[in-house]
Amino acid sequence: MNWTRKDLLGLEDLSPEEIKLILDTAVPMKEIIGRPIKKVPTLRGRTVVTLFYEPSTRTRTSFELAAKYLSADSVNIATSTSSVVKGESLKDTARTITAMGADVVILRHSMAGAPHLLARTVRAAVINAGDGAHEHPTQALLDMFTVREKMGGLAGLTVAMVGDILHSRVARSNIWGFTRMGATVRLCGPATMIPPQVEAMGAQVCATMEEALAGADVVMMLRIQLERQQQGLFPGVREYARLFGLNRERLALARPGALVMHPGPMNRGVEIAPEVADGVQSVINEQVTSGVAVRMALLYLLAGGGKGQE
Amino acid sequence: MNWTRKDLLGLEDLSPEEIKLILDTAVPMKEIIGRPIKKVPTLRGRTVVTLFYEPSTRTRTSFELAAKYLSADSVNIATSTSSVVKGESLKDTARTITAMGADVVILRHSMAGAPHLLARTVRAAVINAGDGAHEHPTQALLDMFTVREKMGGLAGLTVAMVGDILHSRVARSNIWGFTRMGATVRLCGPATMIPPQVEAMGAQVCATMEEALAGADVVMMLRIQLERQQQGLFPGVREYARLFGLNRERLALARPGALVMHPGPMNRGVEIAPEVADGVQSVINEQVTSGVAVRMALLYLLAGGGKGQE
Amino acid sequence: MNWTRKDLLGLEDLSPEEIKLILDTAVPMKEIIGRPIKKVPTLRGRTVVTLFYEPSTRTRTSFELAAKYLSADSVNIATSTSSVVKGESLKDTARTITAMGADVVILRHSMAGAPHLLARTVRAAVINAGDGAHEHPTQALLDMFTVREKMGGLAGLTVAMVGDILHSRVARSNIWGFTRMGATVRLCGPATMIPPQVEAMGAQVCATMEEALAGADVVMMLRIQLERQQQGLFPGVREYARLFGLNRERLALARPGALVMHPGPMNRGVEIAPEVADGVQSVINEQVTSGVAVRMALLYLLAGGGKGQE
Repeated sequence: MNWTRKDLLGLEDLSPEEIKLILDTAVPMKEIIGRPIKKVPTLRGRTVVTLFYEPSTRTRTSFELAAKYLSADSVNIATSTSSVVKGESLKDTARTITAMGADVVILRHSMAGAPHLLARTVRAAVINAGDGAHEHPTQALLDMFTVREKMGGLAGLTVAMVGDILHSRVARSNIWGFTRMGATVRLCGPATMIPPQVEAMGAQVCATMEEALAGADVVMMLRIQLERQQQGLFPGVREYARLFGLNRERLALARPGALVMHPGPMNRGVEIAPEVADGVQSVINEQVTSGVAVRMALLYLLAGGGKGQE
Repeated sequence: MNWTRKDLLGLEDLSPEEIKLILDTAVPMKEIIGRPIKKVPTLRGRTVVTLFYEPSTRTRTSFELAAKYLSADSVNIATSTSSVVKGESLKDTARTITAMGADVVILRHSMAGAPHLLARTVRAAVINAGDGAHEHPTQALLDMFTVREKMGGLAGLTVAMVGDILHSRVARSNIWGFTRMGATVRLCGPATMIPPQVEAMGAQVCATMEEALAGADVVMMLRIQLERQQQGLFPGVREYARLFGLNRERLALARPGALVMHPGPMNRGVEIAPEVADGVQSVINEQVTSGVAVRMALLYLLAGGGKGQE
Repeated sequence: MNWTRKDLLGLEDLSPEEIKLILDTAVPMKEIIGRPIKKVPTLRGRTVVTLFYEPSTRTRTSFELAAKYLSADSVNIATSTSSVVKGESLKDTARTITAMGADVVILRHSMAGAPHLLARTVRAAVINAGDGAHEHPTQALLDMFTVREKMGGLAGLTVAMVGDILHSRVARSNIWGFTRMGATVRLCGPATMIPPQVEAMGAQVCATMEEALAGADVVMMLRIQLERQQQGLFPGVREYARLFGLNRERLALARPGALVMHPGPMNRGVEIAPEVADGVQSVINEQVTSGVAVRMALLYLLAGGGKGQE
């Protein structure tokens, strides 16, 4: 199949074929990252703008490098140095960026749905790099890429996600993505952090970590945001680690050779024990490399492909 | 004619021939921005440094993309992350940047005349990207480019500028530029915001918007800085919009097909009504694209042209 | 000899041969900076990441331009916009950057030894761009390059360093470097700012500036950090200038034609008089250009050389 969408806004409405196309496209991209000369001319003369209304080095740098490896020009706009301080609306900012020649706008915004608004406003391709607690599709795609690469496929696998599901756009996108590809998703976390609608999304809620991990093929730990403690959403860091932290004993409940994943940045000793984060089953660094590959694939599909003169 | 100046500091002392040369040079540049592959090797190996002592995404990004489209290397220095926090003087900072190999330094500074100081200090070309309330020549050049492109010329046109003329470097540069090219400039705004010297600059001061707009070919709205209200310079946002905001009724006073312009970012509903900003007469997005083209032309004239080995 | 180290962490453990190799490699690099087209394809497809936990425009920009002149891709990560705000450890940040494809990580950190920690953690090459009050090896290398270029060699020269030796990583690296290359290093400054261990490093402590400067070939002034005054480390700016400032009279004590150096940014009128900073013996701007050349040499040795497919 060919890619036909203008934008990549979320996984909720992607078909399994579309997800597969993105992951397949990322395979040769990852090879490029492994070469001594990490550079192909594919997107020469295309312009990628990262527009981040929330700080993020990790995601922004990943997109920036993805653009550079494909020879695209990239420009970064962050809130703090942006004319958004002058009160310009998101729509007007996006129109301005597009009028300057942006082919792809990568948006991170605290408001769920902001990328969708942008996508309707501008002719440039829009990639959602995280919108509120809604979706973070490129993170889920890199997670799926990593699992598929290690496990050979996604259908039939059992993925346990542990942590703050309620506030996690990573969790939401992964639930859509993994279930769409035929995997079973189990969720576990403090009762205050499991929203009721996840079961309607196709995920299973488990009462204990033991239940969630039993025989799982993949254990995906979510980052706990320590400021949630002050909001009374969990009892304390030590208690959280005791109930929901991944340590060696708990990991032993999963399938032998199960993958350990974390979107980063990690709170070592809280949601994940250092010996597990750095252990042989961890693919956490691999996720980062896959992230660049998946973003290269998306830039290629949205800005390159059959478009233009190439 | 050939370009002979080292710097572009303001429109006050440019001849009509020099302005025409810049605008003519920007024409093929704008074509480049419209291509799928927006990249020419013209300034490969030249270095452009943006040195911004005031925040501005719009202008900085426009210059950065102009440099990239011409294959120049570009580096951004913003006050907040700069060694200017250590108290280094502007002159020493400029000498340092030049010693690193900068061919063009693009300066935004709150002090009127700062670019002129810099131009005398360093051998690199200096472009004024806004100095205090003094000049913002590249904005005026992009405005003139846009009008010329749409209207076929500048001589004989009537341009109405409305808003805070007193604090506007955009207005000052545009008054110099448009009058130099043979256009008539009418000004209108709160009495506290019209400096007496504008008449000596060749502009006409109008008492009401109706008078300013009557039969005008171009209506250029200036951004009102809302913090001026606290300084007592205008009575309030609602009152300002009532007296000096551009709406459909007022626009009907101008020549049919008159251009609506705004340097951005807009305060929608204050100085300009949304239906006018997004209406068929608006060339506001066009201005943004022209801005990149004009800046490419300037980089070409100042850093490329007959210079170097090319 | 060939370069065999993975990293450049400090001058303390570099051999004279290694220092000479870096300086020799920088010679053709400096020629590139002097060309109209400052660009060679040497490091095309290599990725350089600057990771700065302390603000510094000067050093960051110098490395960034060095990377661009060699056609490497470069990405900047500064603390304020970094995920380090989310509490990620330096090690995990470095692992993430490397997993994204970084070939060289340039680190500035307030903690002495941070680059050494990083170098053991990641397979990428690490360059120390300043760690606490410990070392700033690229500054010392550019100082040595500049002196060697002007004087024809380093052995047998007398270098006077004046100022806050205690808090100066520049001084420490220069003491290691110049003594290693056979030069004599004299130190002078407020008694509170001369640490006792410098004599064990091979430097001579002088009681007065007159003693330090007598017949010196090079006078290297250090930047005084004005906030030290509040800490009671020196009596006041005027008093400091009187006792330890370099003016024309004092410079006359040095060898005729002695070089005047300063790492910048300068406090003009405090540690150095303007007429000396801008005088014929000053090589302060030359130091800046040499800095880019030395950093190009290091990027070449660490990321290029015989490595990869080229």
